[in-house]
Amino acid sequence: MDITPGPYLQMINSPADLKKISREELQQVSDELRQYIIDIVSVQGGHFGASLGVVELTVALHYVFNAPYDQLVWDVGHQAYGHKILTGRRDNFSTNRKYNGLSGFPKRSESEFDTFGVGHSSTSISAALGMAMAAKYKGETDRKSVAIIGDGAMTAGLAFEGMNHAGVSDTDLLIVLNDNCMSIDPNVGALKEYLTDITTSKTYNRLKDDIWKALGKLPGSQFSREMASKIEHSIKGFVSRSSNLFESLNLRYFGPIDGHNMSKLVDTLNDLKNIPGPKLLHVVTVKGKGYALAEKDQTKWHAPGLFDKITGEIYKKRYETPQPPKYQDVFGHTLIELAEKNDKIFGITPAMPSGSSLKFMMDKMPDRAFDVGICEQHAVTLSAGMATQGMKVFCNIYSSFMQRAYDQVIHDTAIQQLPVIFCLDRAGLVGEDGPTHHGAYDIAYMRCIPHLIVSAPMNESELRNLMYTAQLDTTTEPFVIRYPRGEGVMPEWRTPFQAIPIGKGRKLKDGKEIAILSLGHPGNFVTNAIRELKADGLDPAHYDMRFVKPLDKGLLLEAFSKYDKILTVEDGTVVGGFGSAILEFAAELRYKGDIRILGIPDSLVEHGTLKELQRECGFDASGIAAALRDMMRDKVTVQHHLLG
Amino acid sequence: MDITPGPYLQMINSPADLKKISREELQQVSDELRQYIIDIVSVQGGHFGASLGVVELTVALHYVFNAPYDQLVWDVGHQAYGHKILTGRRDNFSTNRKYNGLSGFPKRSESEFDTFGVGHSSTSISAALGMAMAAKYKGETDRKSVAIIGDGAMTAGLAFEGMNHAGVSDTDLLIVLNDNCMSIDPNVGALKEYLTDITTSKTYNRLKDDIWKALGKLPGSQFSREMASKIEHSIKGFVSRSSNLFESLNLRYFGPIDGHNMSKLVDTLNDLKNIPGPKLLHVVTVKGKGYALAEKDQTKWHAPGLFDKITGEIYKKRYETPQPPKYQDVFGHTLIELAEKNDKIFGITPAMPSGSSLKFMMDKMPDRAFDVGICEQHAVTLSAGMATQGMKVFCNIYSSFMQRAYDQVIHDTAIQQLPVIFCLDRAGLVGEDGPTHHGAYDIAYMRCIPHLIVSAPMNESELRNLMYTAQLDTTTEPFVIRYPRGEGVMPEWRTPFQAIPIGKGRKLKDGKEIAILSLGHPGNFVTNAIRELKADGLDPAHYDMRFVKPLDKGLLLEAFSKYDKILTVEDGTVVGGFGSAILEFAAELRYKGDIRILGIPDSLVEHGTLKELQRECGFDASGIAAALRDMMRDKVTVQHHLLG
Repeated sequence: MDITPGPYLQMINSPADLKKISREELQQVSDELRQYIIDIVSVQGGHFGASLGVVELTVALHYVFNAPYDQLVWDVGHQAYGHKILTGRRDNFSTNRKYNGLSGFPKRSESEFDTFGVGHSSTSISAALGMAMAAKYKGETDRKSVAIIGDGAMTAGLAFEGMNHAGVSDTDLLIVLNDNCMSIDPNVGALKEYLTDITTSKTYNRLKDDIWKALGKLPGSQFSREMASKIEHSIKGFVSRSSNLFESLNLRYFGPIDGHNMSKLVDTLNDLKNIPGPKLLHVVTVKGKGYALAEKDQTKWHAPGLFDKITGEIYKKRYETPQPPKYQDVFGHTLIELAEKNDKIFGITPAMPSGSSLKFMMDKMPDRAFDVGICEQHAVTLSAGMATQGMKVFCNIYSSFMQRAYDQVIHDTAIQQLPVIFCLDRAGLVGEDGPTHHGAYDIAYMRCIPHLIVSAPMNESELRNLMYTAQLDTTTEPFVIRYPRGEGVMPEWRTPFQAIPIGKGRKLKDGKEIAILSLGHPGNFVTNAIRELKADGLDPAHYDMRFVKPLDKGLLLEAFSKYDKILTVEDGTVVGGFGSAILEFAAELRYKGDIRILGIPDSLVEHGTLKELQRECGFDASGIAAALRDMMRDKVTVQHHLLG
Repeated sequence: MDITPGPYLQMINSPADLKKISREELQQVSDELRQYIIDIVSVQGGHFGASLGVVELTVALHYVFNAPYDQLVWDVGHQAYGHKILTGRRDNFSTNRKYNGLSGFPKRSESEFDTFGVGHSSTSISAALGMAMAAKYKGETDRKSVAIIGDGAMTAGLAFEGMNHAGVSDTDLLIVLNDNCMSIDPNVGALKEYLTDITTSKTYNRLKDDIWKALGKLPGSQFSREMASKIEHSIKGFVSRSSNLFESLNLRYFGPIDGHNMSKLVDTLNDLKNIPGPKLLHVVTVKGKGYALAEKDQTKWHAPGLFDKITGEIYKKRYETPQPPKYQDVFGHTLIELAEKNDKIFGITPAMPSGSSLKFMMDKMPDRAFDVGICEQHAVTLSAGMATQGMKVFCNIYSSFMQRAYDQVIHDTAIQQLPVIFCLDRAGLVGEDGPTHHGAYDIAYMRCIPHLIVSAPMNESELRNLMYTAQLDTTTEPFVIRYPRGEGVMPEWRTPFQAIPIGKGRKLKDGKEIAILSLGHPGNFVTNAIRELKADGLDPAHYDMRFVKPLDKGLLLEAFSKYDKILTVEDGTVVGGFGSAILEFAAELRYKGDIRILGIPDSLVEHGTLKELQRECGFDASGIAAALRDMMRDKVTVQHHLLG
């Protein structure tokens, strides 16, 4: 690649280099940084708008603070490209999100400047507070901890929990609230309205300006705890203790300031460095700043894929023949079809309307489909509350984000046997987002819950039928449908609805000696493997089990009685997952054949393309074929490394 | 039992009966209700202070609202005894928390008045909002939803998430904030200080009083959306939009009012019934109200056990010989011993300092042990943040509450391989608190996470050694130690520390034909079962595996090679738990013997004494002995019901 960073950026190999640059030249650094991000992301892909929005903030933070001694904690992390480029990763930034390349998120193992690994939102305040408390305990009084968190991430309960503790913590924690009114989709909720309110309130801002002027007259270095307290006292003359949501939580509130005004940012951060106690700086930014199209359509440009940076044309693959749709779109369109016939149906997503395609229903039936913001816990308990009133709620949450609402699934839904329908999008490996986003654990963590139905469709038609089944009045228990990110296999996907008996699988083919039991989309890899194995004269049977809970015991009895060898295939962890469910039933039946489990291994799978990762995990078609050949050759290769 | 309810209470078989009583007599009803709770709890046990504190509020809510058409949603639920007694469960209230008796918490299957099952905190706002949204959608415009939530529960992120949505929901949701400054232990955090601040602020209250007077002049029934808006506008003359934390979230704030002033409560609730939109009423109550000792020592009297209601003497069992300590106390004392030698050790609990016995360390080392309030998510991420700085944090969370912090264990701890030590208290069955509190799932939901060490001590000495091992610098991965509620088995428990090799189990005895593999405390039941089986001439081997992750593969190889039958025993779900881990390894080794799993079945285990429930689940000593006899007789009794 021949993308050349600008002359300033070329010189910056660490924040120490940045600090050598004069204040006046920082905007130039920002401009070059922004251009470099545009240059690289346009040809390599990745998150886009978020990092553009914090370019000035990133430069200012690294200019003012002394990382890695001072700890910058980026929330979510998809806005941290500028941070990565400034902290020694400029030249290999083109490997961002590639197999064996840089992670798209901050990652502790990648750099000492990445203080806390992220991917999920709203962790930064708690993590930075932990760092600040440790620093205080160790007597490192000059060491600063800074959490940089968006207004979207602020709506998650974890952020509130962190603030509630920070406010009484007696640490110097600084929270930078990066307010751009956006999550991936436009942000929602009362907090958002509140922030807009104080950002646009002239009275409030005038008052704040007065305070800032007062602060400006004091040389920064002379701030002491005592002085800050005096200033606070005088401020209270204007603004009562309870005048501000953050002040209510005992966080000193500063701002709002323009997050693209370099000089203001540097001044402000310098001042705040010397003001003791927990505090929050409200910075207003524009997502996609500096790239006009991205500023205008922020959701589209959150992670646009590859594009022509000059014309702004986003490249789309073109195909000669009709292609299978994304499971997401099948979900989105099917939900509308069902909701048109069943007026009890609602749709809920925590901040993923575009990603999940619930947006289709939100546009068409705005009173029955909602984005509730980044708050998985609330999304689930709200759904359960609606279910008590007979509503059929499709609560769509990415598998890895559902980890945030685990207790709500158990305590608020399953224990009460409320028939909420949980659509776990992006179950299995997700590709370039890596280990924080892989939906690797849901089969294991869901199937141990009583009264839960846990299913996975092998194709689009199955997804439609599972959704149809889940919303029937005869379905009286919570119903999980997990499906992967991306395309299915059926270009002609809009098949008529058919109810599926709960807990019933499908026999796809009979075979000889060995049966493959698969769950969900990887069943298609099995189909391909079977095709490949024909050349070897091998002819396994294939069962698409559909449900991991309840298991189709009749079908399993058939498989166990006909075949001496069983191979299970899933896109979930091999520990406690679908394969283990088969083992449990086999043990009860005292089945004495061989059973081998393929799936996501018990280790962290890093990022890469889906194909690369499936190959690595050994459950793509050729991995399945290889495992089957091994079993037929009676090899026990697996033992070797297990006993190491 | 010959406890007679007072004359008014005798007449009340449902809220309809309550409504026939004149307003002037409601305090009498409250007094009788309070006395009845004291009479019953003193001889039957149960939660105490919380229900006493909300007696007047309970009576007022049922007097003013029209349950079950109107929906009262009690948060946590251990304060709902009065509600239960007023809603048809007076006469069988003496079965409260007994096997096959009433649940200690609201429970949908128990009564149509129990709108939402609880046990865990902070769910009420989301659940009630779901009900309100469904009512609005169905056009039931007169139907009210009320969440009654404590100030302790308010600190959990889920409550904030619910408020953030409620504020923009355009429903008539009423949130009653029951502010008594307490969780089970005294409440902590910035929110608590804020509430105290507005409760005690004279200026603020005077202002509020003015507003109340203004409201008082308007006949309640004439309130319309338009009028409310006008009033709100005039209020803004005094208090700016952002003057209050709750108003910041677009919830109209009313109060604070005295939660023991019957007449004020009834008036206020009547007024609020007619004020549209989402709103919050701040009610100040005293936990334990009306029982002087309980008012004075609120933590002790949260759930005091049996006591003499006249003298206030809490009955303690007396023993002739030294008894084994609670695992909780072993944890508490051992942590201090370790912390005295290792200055990197911290202790963190989310609102369970007394229950977990972290209180010992908090008293002795207040700068190194913290109660962070009801916020499991924050507790874990904070611990992870501290671990990045080399701290050894013992984060103590009840097993069932850890479900709240599942993503934080995966995303913030395990993926980053930060060596936080998670002490999962109350793992396994918990007894009288029932299904919401059983720590049934943690083995299954923890062992599927890469890089996690998951262990369970069989006795006090093992707990000490696991804690010792977990804090060593050689331990570089997150370390889960799960142990049950209540007593261990070693009166002489303060044994010298010994490091345990990670992933190594213990062979307790050799045997013939069959081996029992146990995890944790139920190993003691195995010991007893083996004693019992001697009479039958049966002599099983016994291995205490200690770790479910990593498994002791060497020890398992020995067991598999020596014995044709294996029985596994755990106090966790049989789905995906310890037994399944054994099955997974057995499958890899192609072990062809029989394996049978004992543990918590895949269904909801209700409440009762530990012994009753262990018997029901079949893993007490006689259940283990029976299972073993079955296996030796080669019976496959288990198949029968499985295939039903």
